[in-house]
Amino acid sequence: MQLIQPTLLLDKKRAIRNIEMMTTKARRSGVIFRPHFKTHQSAAIGGWFREAGVDRITVSSLDMALYFAKNGWRNITVAFPVNLPEIDKINRLAEGIELHLLVESTESVKLLNQQLRYPAHLWIKIDTGYHRTGIEWDNFTKILQVAETIERAEKISLQGLLTHSGHSYRGKSTAEIRDIYSDTMLKLKSVKDRLASAGINEVKISIGDTPTCSLVESFDGVDEIRPGNFVFYDAMQLRLGSCSEDQIAVGLACPVVARHQQRNEIVIYGGAIHLSKEFLMDENDTPVFGRICRLGQNGWGSIAKSSYVSALSQEHGIIKADSDFFEQVKVGDILVILPVHSCLTANLMKRYRTLDGTWIESMQSQIPDFNA
Amino acid sequence: MQLIQPTLLLDKKRAIRNIEMMTTKARRSGVIFRPHFKTHQSAAIGGWFREAGVDRITVSSLDMALYFAKNGWRNITVAFPVNLPEIDKINRLAEGIELHLLVESTESVKLLNQQLRYPAHLWIKIDTGYHRTGIEWDNFTKILQVAETIERAEKISLQGLLTHSGHSYRGKSTAEIRDIYSDTMLKLKSVKDRLASAGINEVKISIGDTPTCSLVESFDGVDEIRPGNFVFYDAMQLRLGSCSEDQIAVGLACPVVARHQQRNEIVIYGGAIHLSKEFLMDENDTPVFGRICRLGQNGWGSIAKSSYVSALSQEHGIIKADSDFFEQVKVGDILVILPVHSCLTANLMKRYRTLDGTWIESMQSQIPDFNA
Repeated sequence: MQLIQPTLLLDKKRAIRNIEMMTTKARRSGVIFRPHFKTHQSAAIGGWFREAGVDRITVSSLDMALYFAKNGWRNITVAFPVNLPEIDKINRLAEGIELHLLVESTESVKLLNQQLRYPAHLWIKIDTGYHRTGIEWDNFTKILQVAETIERAEKISLQGLLTHSGHSYRGKSTAEIRDIYSDTMLKLKSVKDRLASAGINEVKISIGDTPTCSLVESFDGVDEIRPGNFVFYDAMQLRLGSCSEDQIAVGLACPVVARHQQRNEIVIYGGAIHLSKEFLMDENDTPVFGRICRLGQNGWGSIAKSSYVSALSQEHGIIKADSDFFEQVKVGDILVILPVHSCLTANLMKRYRTLDGTWIESMQSQIPDFNA
Repeated sequence: MQLIQPTLLLDKKRAIRNIEMMTTKARRSGVIFRPHFKTHQSAAIGGWFREAGVDRITVSSLDMALYFAKNGWRNITVAFPVNLPEIDKINRLAEGIELHLLVESTESVKLLNQQLRYPAHLWIKIDTGYHRTGIEWDNFTKILQVAETIERAEKISLQGLLTHSGHSYRGKSTAEIRDIYSDTMLKLKSVKDRLASAGINEVKISIGDTPTCSLVESFDGVDEIRPGNFVFYDAMQLRLGSCSEDQIAVGLACPVVARHQQRNEIVIYGGAIHLSKEFLMDENDTPVFGRICRLGQNGWGSIAKSSYVSALSQEHGIIKADSDFFEQVKVGDILVILPVHSCLTANLMKRYRTLDGTWIESMQSQIPDFNA
C-alpha cells in the first residue's frame, strides 16, 4: 500500500474486537446495545455491527438517520434535541422505520404531535450533570409535565429517560469516571421511581458515553447503552484510561515534509482539516493534538514517548520530538498520528483505508445534497 | 429561503467588496496579487477573483492545485513544503500550468530536480519568526546552499523568498501586527541583499498573512502578496483588528433546539463538525467558539454583546447568553454564528448558500477520489 498524503488507516481487526467486546458486555448485563454510529458514519462499518447481532442504532442527525435507513437499519434513535424545522425528514423516517427522538420540553412534544404523520417513540433527555442538554434530573415537576404530555398525545409513545454523562470526559481518574456512572444511575433511578409513584410505569433507562461504558463491568438497572467512540477509541480515551493503546483502531498516516534540528521539530502533512483542532491536556498540562507512532508492516507500532503533535494549522502538523525520535525520522517517512478525537477526524477524512489497502466509504464521502 | 439545519451563509456583496479592496491595495503598491484559495476552495468564488483581474493563485495542497487547474487556473503556487511522495501529481501539474513550489532543503531540491519531467518554479521558504516551516532567516549559509543548488539544476528556476508571518495571529494589537510586518520585511530584504552580494540576483519577495496584508497600506520592497482569509474574514480577524464587523462575509445559520433558563444557555444545532473547534480568547481571557448575530431580512445583524458560543461538541453548540438576549430567543429560531476561523468552517461545511438562496459548491462538495 502506497501512502502519499494524509490517509485515515483503519485496523479492522481491532475495530471488530472492540465491537465484540462491547456486544458481549451488553449481552452479559442483559441490556440492549444501541451503538452510536456518529463515530464512523459508514454503512460498511455498520455491517460489522450487524454481524455481531446489533439491530438498533443511535445517530446524531436526521441526515445520518436517513443515510442508515437507506442502508437497511430499521430502528434508529436520533440522539439530539428534536429539530422541528426538519419535520419533513422526521416524517419520512417515521414512515419507514421505528424512529426514536429526544425531547426536553412540553412545547416540543406538542408541536411534534401536531406535525407527525406517523408514530414515533420519545425519550425524555435528562441532565445528570453534564449540563449540555436535558431537563435537570432534580426538576421533577418539569419531567412529569413532559411525561404526561407524551402520555396524552396520540402519535407518540414514551420510551423512557435518556442521558449522556459527557462529564465523564472531565474525569480525573478511572475511579472518578466510575463514580460518575454510579451517580448518574442513582439520579435516573430516583426519577424513574418518582414517575412510577405518579402512575407512569415501564420507563426505560438509556445511557451513553464511551468512558463509563468501557469502565463499568455490569449495567444494573440500565435498559440500553449507546456508546459510539469505543469502535475506534483514540488518544483522549487512552488519556482517560477507558481503553488500552492496542484498542485504538484508527491512525492518520502523514508524510514528513520538513525537519527543524534547532528546535527538534518535525513538520508533517496532516493538519486541522485532517485531525480537527481537538486537543487533550497531558500529565504536564501540555496541549497535545495527537500521539505519534511509526508505520509498521501490519499497521502501526507503539506510541513514541516524549514526542507529540504540538500544533496544527490548516494542512500542517508540528511534532515536538525528543532527540532520539528526531534523529530516526527523515523527510518522506510516513508517521501515524493517533487522533485526540476519532469521531471528528473520521468526519473530516470522509473515508478509511484498512491495513490491506481497501477503501471504506462513509456518508461524508457520498455527499448526498440533503440541503438542496 | 428556508433554513432548517446548519447552513453556511455567504454574503456575496461583502466577499466581492473584500476582493476589490485587496486587489486595489495590491495594484496601488504595484505588487502581484496571488490570493490564497484554501479559504474558499471553490471554483465559483475563484471566478469572482478572476473578474477582479486576478490570474495567479496560491493553494495549500496538490489536490487543490489540480482542482483549480481543472477550472482554468494556469499559474499556481502550492504554499506547502513540497511533498515528494506526490511526484506524479506534481508532474501532471507542471505539464499543464506554471507551477510554483516551496522548498527548504538542498535534499528536496535535488530529489525534485531528478523526478520532475517538466519545468517548475521554486521559492525558498524563509522563517521570519513564525517557526512553523522554512529556513531561519539568519541561517544564510543554508539559504545560499539551497539557492545555489536551485541555480545549478536544469528543470527548476529560482523565483525568490517566500514567507508566511503567521505569528501576526499572536499580535496583541494592530501596532504589534504592523511591527511584525516591518520586522519581516527587514529580514527578507537583508537575505535578498546578501544573496545579491553572492551573485544571485532577481530574487523576488512573497509575503502572505491576512492580518498584515489588511493592516499595512503599502508594500514597499514586496513583489507579491498571498492573503487568503480576507475574502471572508471571521471572528478571529475581528478580534485582531484586521477587519471590521461588516467585512465578515460568512456566517453559519443554526436552528435553536433548546433553552436552559437556570444557566441562561441556548443550545443550537451547529457544532464542531460545522464550525471546527477553533477558538479565540476574548478580552476577559474567555474561550469563544463563535460570535452570535440575529438573522435579518438581508443577511445577519450586528454581533450580540455579552453573548457568545462557549462550547462545541460534535453537533451541539452552547451559547452563554445575557438575560436580554436569552429572553429574545425561542426554540426554532435561526441564529447566525460568525466562525472563529472561516477557512476551517468552509472546509467542513463544503458548500455555501448566498443570501438570495443560491448554492455554491467547493472542491469539498465534489469529492473527486484523489486517493484511489
